[in-house]
Amino acid sequence: MKLPEKTVERLSVYRRTLLECLTKGKTHIYSHELARLHNITAVQVRRDLMLIGYSSMKKKGYDAHELVDVIGKLIDHKNGLNVAVIGMGNLGRAVTTYFTGKRPKLNIVATFDVDPNKTNRVISSVNCYHIKDIKDLIKTKKISIAIITSPPETTAIIAETLVAAGIKGILNFTTTPINVPESVFLEEFDMITSIEKVAYFVKDQVKS
Amino acid sequence: MKLPEKTVERLSVYRRTLLECLTKGKTHIYSHELARLHNITAVQVRRDLMLIGYSSMKKKGYDAHELVDVIGKLIDHKNGLNVAVIGMGNLGRAVTTYFTGKRPKLNIVATFDVDPNKTNRVISSVNCYHIKDIKDLIKTKKISIAIITSPPETTAIIAETLVAAGIKGILNFTTTPINVPESVFLEEFDMITSIEKVAYFVKDQVKS
Repeated sequence: MKLPEKTVERLSVYRRTLLECLTKGKTHIYSHELARLHNITAVQVRRDLMLIGYSSMKKKGYDAHELVDVIGKLIDHKNGLNVAVIGMGNLGRAVTTYFTGKRPKLNIVATFDVDPNKTNRVISSVNCYHIKDIKDLIKTKKISIAIITSPPETTAIIAETLVAAGIKGILNFTTTPINVPESVFLEEFDMITSIEKVAYFVKDQVKS
Repeated sequence: MKLPEKTVERLSVYRRTLLECLTKGKTHIYSHELARLHNITAVQVRRDLMLIGYSSMKKKGYDAHELVDVIGKLIDHKNGLNVAVIGMGNLGRAVTTYFTGKRPKLNIVATFDVDPNKTNRVISSVNCYHIKDIKDLIKTKKISIAIITSPPETTAIIAETLVAAGIKGILNFTTTPINVPESVFLEEFDMITSIEKVAYFVKDQVKS
């Protein structure tokens, strides 16, 4: 039985915080501390951890190392998953750089573009291939997730190609929403809409 | 009375689609067409438009031009809002490039960094200043929204500085969640958590 999306998001964020605590030498953390760091309630934290079967809180708080492992066993794939980034403009490079080395169970194994100045090169420490080879490389490199950071007018055709090639999950960073079969997990983030939303909620505080 | 966040997001996306229709010469659109393009129901579209007081659908469908105007009057600030991007690494440059010129009522008027190779330069067509000048520039350039794309360890201090300088809205793209007063509208997007979420939902389909 899969966890709710919001719970998975929070677990991912808790894990990152716990790893930071550990690098600073903090080995234990209380639910209220974890809550405060994430602007949520201690009740929510405890509920999330109970949902994943972790409710051990000793006098010193949760054992950070143990909790990182429990979360990892739950949200990561045992052997890791391979990821591709499609579109190596500024955004694609930013995503690839942001990612590389950050999560051991997620590897960006290839990037794709059409620009001859980018293809057959190493960009942000990852090989960049021509998009025409994407079907083969998805199979040979066992790529299960693709991040689309290409120009909006290319999004639809790229999504089609990915789905036909057997991609299991897509993170769409373009401003073009896409349609995929139910068997493909889709996450979309639209930067322009996000900023327009912020603008809508602040505009009344700004004099004309 | 403010609209729900999800409605504002959808209106922003509808508007973009309507503008694309207009560039392709399509002047009218039915609710079911708009719905299909966004993977939602026609009922949702009609409900959103009724919420903003627009329910006129003639035989030919909604008048795209008119609807773009109605949405604009609702979600945009009359004279536009000024935006700053903090942190001009790959992600900051990607955001600045993505944005510039796309939305007439939102202007990236300044970017900030600490790297002497970037400050006092024009990057992605916008002036880049040193972060030490941010308080003054927020006032003089009437910046109401900031997009944080700086390294995660700098996020907290940058957020504090922005709030103290009178920023009204923040879009946080770093992996560090921040805490702001209720008077500041905060939108956060965490790239690593998004991809971990996709990975969680696809991992069972991938053999170990």
